[in-house]
Amino acid sequence: MKQWRSLSSKKGRQATQSYLLESWHLVQEAIKARQPLTAIMGTADELAAHEVQLPQAVPTFELTDSIAKTIGDTGTPQGIFATLPMPNATVVDPTTAAGTWLFLDYVQDPGNIGTMVRTADAAGLTGVVFGKGTASRFLPKVLRAMQGSQYHLQLVEADLHDWIKAFTSRGLPVYGTNLDPKARDYREVNPMTAGAIVMGNEGNGMAPDLQTMTTTNLYIPIKGQAESLNVAIAAGVVMFRVVA
Amino acid sequence: MKQWRSLSSKKGRQATQSYLLESWHLVQEAIKARQPLTAIMGTADELAAHEVQLPQAVPTFELTDSIAKTIGDTGTPQGIFATLPMPNATVVDPTTAAGTWLFLDYVQDPGNIGTMVRTADAAGLTGVVFGKGTASRFLPKVLRAMQGSQYHLQLVEADLHDWIKAFTSRGLPVYGTNLDPKARDYREVNPMTAGAIVMGNEGNGMAPDLQTMTTTNLYIPIKGQAESLNVAIAAGVVMFRVVA
Repeated sequence: MKQWRSLSSKKGRQATQSYLLESWHLVQEAIKARQPLTAIMGTADELAAHEVQLPQAVPTFELTDSIAKTIGDTGTPQGIFATLPMPNATVVDPTTAAGTWLFLDYVQDPGNIGTMVRTADAAGLTGVVFGKGTASRFLPKVLRAMQGSQYHLQLVEADLHDWIKAFTSRGLPVYGTNLDPKARDYREVNPMTAGAIVMGNEGNGMAPDLQTMTTTNLYIPIKGQAESLNVAIAAGVVMFRVVA
Repeated sequence: MKQWRSLSSKKGRQATQSYLLESWHLVQEAIKARQPLTAIMGTADELAAHEVQLPQAVPTFELTDSIAKTIGDTGTPQGIFATLPMPNATVVDPTTAAGTWLFLDYVQDPGNIGTMVRTADAAGLTGVVFGKGTASRFLPKVLRAMQGSQYHLQLVEADLHDWIKAFTSRGLPVYGTNLDPKARDYREVNPMTAGAIVMGNEGNGMAPDLQTMTTTNLYIPIKGQAESLNVAIAAGVVMFRVVA
């Protein structure tokens, strides 16, 4: 029990090399994606409700309602959970990587990160590179916002300098984003089938040195009086326009 | 003090007919928008840091660090706050309302609602109608996500049946949204200068009876394996394409 509770913290995840899924929706996505679940824990009601769909080979543990409330980090207790081993780091070579990618530079809000992974999935991208300073994909709030899209895309942790350099050397477009109206209107570029879009930190945008390495930097014209867009919204608008 | 703390709850807001802004960013937006602040409260450091920009006519109260932490509902204490009277309900007549509008039907997540208001501002819309079941625009999390855009747009609480009927009667397009691939691809409609877009509940989408009242319903083709988009992302993609 103590070990399950510990998975809400980074220390606990590192010590056990495993992480926690909360809610039936996330557990179900993992089952559908044939992930190597190590345990399923739930209240009697939740386990009964989903009995038919639970894989027989995975050990199942019944929790009392009061114990279920102490597991996980959601304000609203979910009643059903699963544990998984942390996967080995996905190694993808940027000099040969195919398709379209989203690069995240110092993105810090877990909800934004998870939502961008989910949106990248929906927009048909190949993968997401978590650059330096970007929050971990095993944070409970990131997992919740990804809604299972982590099983549909390649997620990589790597240095964005290497990835940007590798893509531009191969002649693939890398589109940075910033708020400078001198940047290029995102509607002016042709939809791509290979290349990358870079999103930056919520407060500071993309690192200046990365901005100088891109093919070009795009901006979304703001028509009203808002100072900026939420980073996940900007990513959605750009991905649905720029990815073929 | 007790009254300031009470503003994190609906009961407290109703009893005092006022609401709370947390963080310098939100207080600053209210000052810029010449809102009728009734008090500004902050730690000595925060008040000193922003002294030049604080309006002289508004009573200012210094808080100890430990008291500042007990005000507001953010996990991260902000150190500076302001109170405002709840504005009288904005009454806009849908039979004469001009421009482009976002209609929210039973949208429940405060972060989604606030982000959609901010995005509507950035996309140049005229206003947002909060339909039945949509969370209050005075919730702290809604205020945080709006980032001051509530001062740039008209926000109205009203019955969406009336608004949809009034717009379509005037020959203005009302675009519903749903996940049905039989709906119309959002890229097929011409950008509009007057009309509305309707976004629905996170889990259930737009109410079926409202769907039958719209000009047509739009969908965003999903290319990957994600089941759906986050409602605020979908709203952003559609608004930036469909609003001229």
